[in-house]
Amino acid sequence: MAVYTHLGAEQLGELIAHYGVGELISAKGIAEGVSNSNWLIETDGVPGSRTRKLGQSERFILTMYERRIELDDLPYFLGLLDHLAASDCPVPRTIHDRDGASFRIVDGKAVALIEFMPGISPTRPSSQQARALGSVLAKLHRASQDFKLTRKTTMGPADVLGIFENCGEDRLAAIDPDLAEMLEASRMLAALDTSGLPRSNIHADLFPDNVLMLGYRVAGLIDFYFACTDIMVYDLAVTHAAWCFDQTGRYIDPQRSKALIEGYQSVRELTAEERDLLPQVAQAASLRFAASRAEDWLSTPEDALVTRKNPMEFVRRYHTYAEAGAAAFAFAD
Amino acid sequence: MAVYTHLGAEQLGELIAHYGVGELISAKGIAEGVSNSNWLIETDGVPGSRTRKLGQSERFILTMYERRIELDDLPYFLGLLDHLAASDCPVPRTIHDRDGASFRIVDGKAVALIEFMPGISPTRPSSQQARALGSVLAKLHRASQDFKLTRKTTMGPADVLGIFENCGEDRLAAIDPDLAEMLEASRMLAALDTSGLPRSNIHADLFPDNVLMLGYRVAGLIDFYFACTDIMVYDLAVTHAAWCFDQTGRYIDPQRSKALIEGYQSVRELTAEERDLLPQVAQAASLRFAASRAEDWLSTPEDALVTRKNPMEFVRRYHTYAEAGAAAFAFAD
Repeated sequence: MAVYTHLGAEQLGELIAHYGVGELISAKGIAEGVSNSNWLIETDGVPGSRTRKLGQSERFILTMYERRIELDDLPYFLGLLDHLAASDCPVPRTIHDRDGASFRIVDGKAVALIEFMPGISPTRPSSQQARALGSVLAKLHRASQDFKLTRKTTMGPADVLGIFENCGEDRLAAIDPDLAEMLEASRMLAALDTSGLPRSNIHADLFPDNVLMLGYRVAGLIDFYFACTDIMVYDLAVTHAAWCFDQTGRYIDPQRSKALIEGYQSVRELTAEERDLLPQVAQAASLRFAASRAEDWLSTPEDALVTRKNPMEFVRRYHTYAEAGAAAFAFAD
Repeated sequence: MAVYTHLGAEQLGELIAHYGVGELISAKGIAEGVSNSNWLIETDGVPGSRTRKLGQSERFILTMYERRIELDDLPYFLGLLDHLAASDCPVPRTIHDRDGASFRIVDGKAVALIEFMPGISPTRPSSQQARALGSVLAKLHRASQDFKLTRKTTMGPADVLGIFENCGEDRLAAIDPDLAEMLEASRMLAALDTSGLPRSNIHADLFPDNVLMLGYRVAGLIDFYFACTDIMVYDLAVTHAAWCFDQTGRYIDPQRSKALIEGYQSVRELTAEERDLLPQVAQAASLRFAASRAEDWLSTPEDALVTRKNPMEFVRRYHTYAEAGAAAFAFAD
């Protein structure tokens, strides 16, 4: 969470002038996004625009993509937002510039202007919130099925195994002996055959940070920068791991778990095969976050100002899913 | 610029409930403030409140003071904002809680809720903007003269000398031999008698970052955390040093300099003694920023992620003021 690039007022003003959104009246760098710089932008709005209310300013998130690799993926990420917004999913629209482009290049880096969405990220989600999220997630999966672009995951089980292998058994064991065991666990999960499971375009990172709620309503899903074309049940597994555990990462909250699954199935029924494989897919999802956190842990100096996230929180989730099996998901049957 | 403390949605919601400002609908950590954490907060507003427009949300800056030392000074800083806002100066009001308090304590740290002000900080100020700022600065000095609290500066010439002495001649010279020379220069300036100059409550840190403009109008002055009771001409000197130089810090822009001084004097005429001493006060103001930057430079590891500001930019300003004398300020007489 940072602002990596300084954009001056004049530079921001010139940039905003390329969009038909009025004059810049405020810009605040915001502490969101791990590899992007973000600004909350306010303009005086445009008479006659479809989002404008009389006398009211308009707000946007301006994102600068700091990593070159993301450029090729931008049409997918930004197009998916537009596709989902058009299907009434609560995601921010991309604002296109006067030439119709969804992103522009400033100082050699891509920038995109995205609708601002109100809402706050729950830190202690309730069952009611989990239920609402489940149904929105299923709605997103249905709506994104006919999106015309595709993107291969970069964090699938084979990638996760690769990350653990790169870290190496010794360095993993130095963090925690149990973490080194995950090398073998991820090898087994990389061999799991999920090719028969139904696919769509998925968010793949739906942690509470990326969900904006107004009371019990899901007001916005944001940060689609891990979105990819993959099995839908993986998205449900990530969301379950992110929303349904207590603070220790050891115990599943049965009410929240039940609510999330019920909410999901109220919009899209899981197939028998999805239910069968969900426990193992949830183990794989847990290792995906254990792996990326282990990698960050090893590459971040101990005295760095950045807080390192503990990979063991997700190793504990892995064990819980491995032990509980189908019981973790409280299916009604 | 950072958010040092994580405040969860529920914690923020509970905090905001103590103020009569409606329900929390959005909170974004913002990348502003060096020693504080700041959030841009939005609420659904309160029917009948004096700031509310129909159907419009209200916005605030929530600041958490991370350094204990600031607690004693908060009544001064926050009271000054209210005093100035009541005198029609463009500064944000402090929002008081339901018990009338201007700050509250959360997790052992003080927090204050402050009015949000639109506007953008110019990176390349124009003469017209400098003129507008000059007149607002003089207005602030007049309005703050009858503020009932006082606060002694912590960055006066004696403090600056102390900082340079703590850094030590050798370590200063290791940054730049010319920086070590400032030890003697600051000793001379600490001996300057400014006791006869007119005083008020001053901002003392009016860099472009702390000025929000809408076009050529000054929409807001923010970040009063160096405000103190001191000679007014020091504030003008700081503002001159911050606004009237080119990017190298070597050359004064004569148009901007003239505009700032004229703007100031359109509201408050400088006394003969103020004019006489302004060149030396401007040297002292330059060394104040050279000193704090030198201290930060020496205490920040070379490989830290934080950008260190170069103290030499203000050593160059010191030399320019020392060489130009009164000519730096383009007085009409």
